[in-house]
Amino acid sequence: MHEKKLSSKLIGVDANDEHARQAVELELVDEVTSLDDAIEQSDVIVLAIPVDKLVELLPTIMDKIENQIVLDLGSTKSNAINAIKNHPKRGRYVATHPMWGTEYSGPTAAMRGAYENKAVIICNANESDADALAWVKYMYKKIGMHLLEMEAKAHDLHAAYISHISHITSFALANTVLEKEKEQQTIFELASAGFESTVRLAKSNPAMWVPIFMQNKENVLDVLKEHISQLTRFKESIEKEDNEYLLRLIEEANKIRRILN
Amino acid sequence: MHEKKLSSKLIGVDANDEHARQAVELELVDEVTSLDDAIEQSDVIVLAIPVDKLVELLPTIMDKIENQIVLDLGSTKSNAINAIKNHPKRGRYVATHPMWGTEYSGPTAAMRGAYENKAVIICNANESDADALAWVKYMYKKIGMHLLEMEAKAHDLHAAYISHISHITSFALANTVLEKEKEQQTIFELASAGFESTVRLAKSNPAMWVPIFMQNKENVLDVLKEHISQLTRFKESIEKEDNEYLLRLIEEANKIRRILN
Repeated sequence: MHEKKLSSKLIGVDANDEHARQAVELELVDEVTSLDDAIEQSDVIVLAIPVDKLVELLPTIMDKIENQIVLDLGSTKSNAINAIKNHPKRGRYVATHPMWGTEYSGPTAAMRGAYENKAVIICNANESDADALAWVKYMYKKIGMHLLEMEAKAHDLHAAYISHISHITSFALANTVLEKEKEQQTIFELASAGFESTVRLAKSNPAMWVPIFMQNKENVLDVLKEHISQLTRFKESIEKEDNEYLLRLIEEANKIRRILN
Repeated sequence: MHEKKLSSKLIGVDANDEHARQAVELELVDEVTSLDDAIEQSDVIVLAIPVDKLVELLPTIMDKIENQIVLDLGSTKSNAINAIKNHPKRGRYVATHPMWGTEYSGPTAAMRGAYENKAVIICNANESDADALAWVKYMYKKIGMHLLEMEAKAHDLHAAYISHISHITSFALANTVLEKEKEQQTIFELASAGFESTVRLAKSNPAMWVPIFMQNKENVLDVLKEHISQLTRFKESIEKEDNEYLLRLIEEANKIRRILN
């Protein structure tokens, strides 16, 4: 933020003392203080916390602010927006979801330039004050993101398809292999790049992901059921040794090439 | 192979004329000729073809060789080995599986140094002649691979866990998203690195993968059923809003950290 001249001072607040210390050490923030102090000193408040904590904390923060801008980076958007729907300060809040993350979390997972050339979704933009919205858009553009606007409901649906299901698949795949493959040394020796890439997300933090799946329950279940049914088709085609059907299933899957480079 | 002084001349044989042309153009081979000519001129014959074609072709090749070494790079090993189990030239064949691949195939998918620091599995080594086995090991070491020996049956089991299931998951995930997410532009805009990494393998060639799944049917079905049952646990924990259970499932999955870096 300093680099892009978007901030004069960055204040960190963290429930975890070790993370607070790391954030200062890694120069992610200039100093660490209490939530109340930080709110008082700030013009802009960025909430990067698990979505269950966000829903708990957001109304309190909105109660405490004067005219500050509040934004969050959470992976689900409907619940946060609903939590302060009728709050008198609603306009000061901008709901955003930058589409970047890794399987790691905490200050040491920070990566310089990570958001560059990535998409950020702003939800229910019309419920935010014009000045707050304008500043948040300016900030995201300045760090190189391209902006998309979407209703929270649509966001949560797309997020289930494009992000949440990938995590469930990866977690389940890790459990499958750990369950079936007792020879861990063998996994280690044989694991190829393909395996690593499909299972990488299984390292992700449960404190972050449990609330995401629960908050986005309907959409996640919908896409998860479809995924189980797609896997069942593969199972049946192999059971029946139906080469033609299996070929068609894979050719269908190949169409993802049109979308991913 | 030339770089490592393992060959004086590389002759390519390809059923696909366009691929044959590309192989010469990309300097992967020095020249292209017919299978019979190539066998006659060669000391070492490397078969890099889909595993159904391998099982068809291998007995014919063994009939045609004098004292040449034959090796293959296929992803399943039992069927190939069984196809020439009692062949008088069995000893000239070495069954290998280098643990590297991408979602791409054909000559343009070749990558310099791809096999470096990767594992290669040699199956049923005791059924190969000592000189043939020694040369193949020498060759793989020379290009930087580390060798593992395994019975074909064990190989096919581990390969199902560590490679084949990842591909099925990826194919099924692509189909899930393509089925549920009709707004392809949205996928394109939103797809994050996590999605790309879990779905990348879905671009893989059906002509290669249909025969792998069919040849390794028992193992693949076994691990696929386990995977569906693991996914069902995630589904049930979300349906019942059982945060504790979902947390435990994810913490289990996190143990993959012990194995992958």
